[in-house]
Amino acid sequence: MATSVSPGLSTQEKLARARAAAPHLALLSTAEKNAILLAMADAVESHTEAILSANRADLETSGLAGAMRERLLLNPERIAEMARGVRAVASLPDPIDEVLAEWTRPNGLRIRKIRVPLGVVGIIYESRPNVTVDTVAITLKTGNAIVLRGGKEAARSNQCLVEILNQVAGVPDGAIQLLDASTRQSVQELIKARGFIDVLIPRGGPELISYVTQNSAVPVIETGAGNCHIFVDELADLGMADRIVVNAKTQRPSVCNAAEKLLVHERIAPQYIPRIVRLLLDLGVELRGDEKSLRYAAGLQIASATPQDWDEEYLRLCMAIAVVADVDAAIRHINRHSTKHSEAIVTDSQENARRFLRQVDSAAVYWNASTRFTDGGEFGFGAEMGVATQKLHCRGPFALAELTSTKYEIIGNGQVRG
Amino acid sequence: MATSVSPGLSTQEKLARARAAAPHLALLSTAEKNAILLAMADAVESHTEAILSANRADLETSGLAGAMRERLLLNPERIAEMARGVRAVASLPDPIDEVLAEWTRPNGLRIRKIRVPLGVVGIIYESRPNVTVDTVAITLKTGNAIVLRGGKEAARSNQCLVEILNQVAGVPDGAIQLLDASTRQSVQELIKARGFIDVLIPRGGPELISYVTQNSAVPVIETGAGNCHIFVDELADLGMADRIVVNAKTQRPSVCNAAEKLLVHERIAPQYIPRIVRLLLDLGVELRGDEKSLRYAAGLQIASATPQDWDEEYLRLCMAIAVVADVDAAIRHINRHSTKHSEAIVTDSQENARRFLRQVDSAAVYWNASTRFTDGGEFGFGAEMGVATQKLHCRGPFALAELTSTKYEIIGNGQVRG
Repeated sequence: MATSVSPGLSTQEKLARARAAAPHLALLSTAEKNAILLAMADAVESHTEAILSANRADLETSGLAGAMRERLLLNPERIAEMARGVRAVASLPDPIDEVLAEWTRPNGLRIRKIRVPLGVVGIIYESRPNVTVDTVAITLKTGNAIVLRGGKEAARSNQCLVEILNQVAGVPDGAIQLLDASTRQSVQELIKARGFIDVLIPRGGPELISYVTQNSAVPVIETGAGNCHIFVDELADLGMADRIVVNAKTQRPSVCNAAEKLLVHERIAPQYIPRIVRLLLDLGVELRGDEKSLRYAAGLQIASATPQDWDEEYLRLCMAIAVVADVDAAIRHINRHSTKHSEAIVTDSQENARRFLRQVDSAAVYWNASTRFTDGGEFGFGAEMGVATQKLHCRGPFALAELTSTKYEIIGNGQVRG
Repeated sequence: MATSVSPGLSTQEKLARARAAAPHLALLSTAEKNAILLAMADAVESHTEAILSANRADLETSGLAGAMRERLLLNPERIAEMARGVRAVASLPDPIDEVLAEWTRPNGLRIRKIRVPLGVVGIIYESRPNVTVDTVAITLKTGNAIVLRGGKEAARSNQCLVEILNQVAGVPDGAIQLLDASTRQSVQELIKARGFIDVLIPRGGPELISYVTQNSAVPVIETGAGNCHIFVDELADLGMADRIVVNAKTQRPSVCNAAEKLLVHERIAPQYIPRIVRLLLDLGVELRGDEKSLRYAAGLQIASATPQDWDEEYLRLCMAIAVVADVDAAIRHINRHSTKHSEAIVTDSQENARRFLRQVDSAAVYWNASTRFTDGGEFGFGAEMGVATQKLHCRGPFALAELTSTKYEIIGNGQVRG
């Protein structure tokens, strides 16, 4: 068994091992990395029984039920899906060594900007064990070492997976480190590990993400929170608006790109609000409304929205509805309350759409489509590490290229500065 | 006078004003921004007397002398130079609205990735008043609001400059905010201003940068510290090595891209060390050496290096010299001790150069040229905000494009997710 998951090593020792592995990972060729990934996929599949056994122990110990248990649960199909994901990453282009720009200065210096690995990537995540395998695959493909801090409910599943991945031939010693999940101490150590961790990515609920972004001394990519809006303009095709609102709210309400708020132009509100309220109620959506919405939905099952509603990410079958004067009022409402994730306008007016696309300050802004498309797979990236909601480094769905940095290589023939 | 520099406003009020200005700045056209910049340049020049008067008051109050006074001092030529810098920024291409990628998905969704402003940029800096004007110009050109926290020794100069810049016609209300420099409190408030500041850039000495990067809850671009190395390989042209070492060490020793450490291949050390030591001593450089260097420089004025020397950024006419076994040992030494800023190899061996360029993990890696070229101007960017030494968002010299974020605009015709 690989020593990197040995409980005998401290967090500091594991961080040092990951740091030491980084230069070796950076030197792996694309062919070497792809061979390792394919071998990892095979190893995961061939150890299905061991993984299921570790996962059963996690399920028994955690005592979780319902949706939480569902997230932790592995079965042969989910394990096969992990392996398919790793093979998909192997088939993607390698971003490392890509020349992003190249020019020659008047003094003859030749400057090249090339993509290089970040070094060591830290991931703090919650129960789903597939994240372990997905993130190891993506970080290996991009020549990075990885330090994982999973949820304590998945500790045995994650340890089993990391041991299997570390045993694959060609994986540099120390490349994959799993931290102790039994206490918060390892999170504390990770967020203070300047010089050891080049980027930290929290993947999980709003509390985890907020804690890490507020307290980390290491650079963070903030992911995930999505208080997403749909604005139905006065010039909307209302049939299309129905389909988009229903899809964005109900197709998978627990995810960050699901819509949480509906804004309706006041000219169509008397007609559209009762119609969409009935549709959403039939689908089991709990509704809240501002004063005008309540008036237009008189007699229907809709509660009065509190001020907190406009900022809340429900992550369930609940939606708040407000009436706005026009597209500018919709833009102001969104820029004030959204988490800058994904917002949509439904309209036939090119002018209103252009205004909305340009002025809404969010990672992904849609015209006549569901917010549910904000996703690495749906964007065609072939993989995803998360959806970035900050503005530095990357914004929106991100995958391989965003796990890289750049370096300038400058070639001269004796130039000195005058 | 603009209220944004009124001492009556709290930091919170100033941050809120900058945040409110951001959407207006984002909507300025390139022509509008360039017109404002040209008017700013004129305004700075036409207020030369007022600026000099404020600067004289700063010089008297601060009681600074020597290099510190020199950094704070303004004169008509330096003011004209500020104005030229602003005009140069006006002439640069506008990165905003650039389409970075554009594609259509099989379901017909059209996705465009476009450059947008970051929003509000925070700058914490020390005495040089020209930074005030330079950074206002660059952030305005990129459609960002700016919050400045300068040094207290330059408070009057900065207040005068910001008042002049804020009075220029077309500058959105609140776009340029100057925080109180008289206490540390405004720094504390700035580094905790999540939601108000999109990126914070500390420009100044290592202590300032270290404090901000360790304690900021706001995303930071780390700039500046440069413990830069030159490795003279066994296959170096020694005349070229002399010129590069002398230039990198002595041409401007107080800046971050000056060389601090010299590594010499052991095969040429007996011959090269006495030669370069004599040359550097003649130029007034204080020298320190490892055991082998001291042996080869026997009889010359060179002290014994302490372990701390290998990690120290001298920023003055001082250099430490070590003998290394080969290019791999040089790479290991550099990756262990450097601040990942700029390093150079002098060699005629393409193989050793390729190895060094590829494996040294620094923002700028040179083959046969001085480290002094790590600079936005020397790279041809036409401007510079600093040299980034972290790996996220940008690395190396950065200017306009790095003060932007991106946004995805997605255009559909009713697509929903299945």
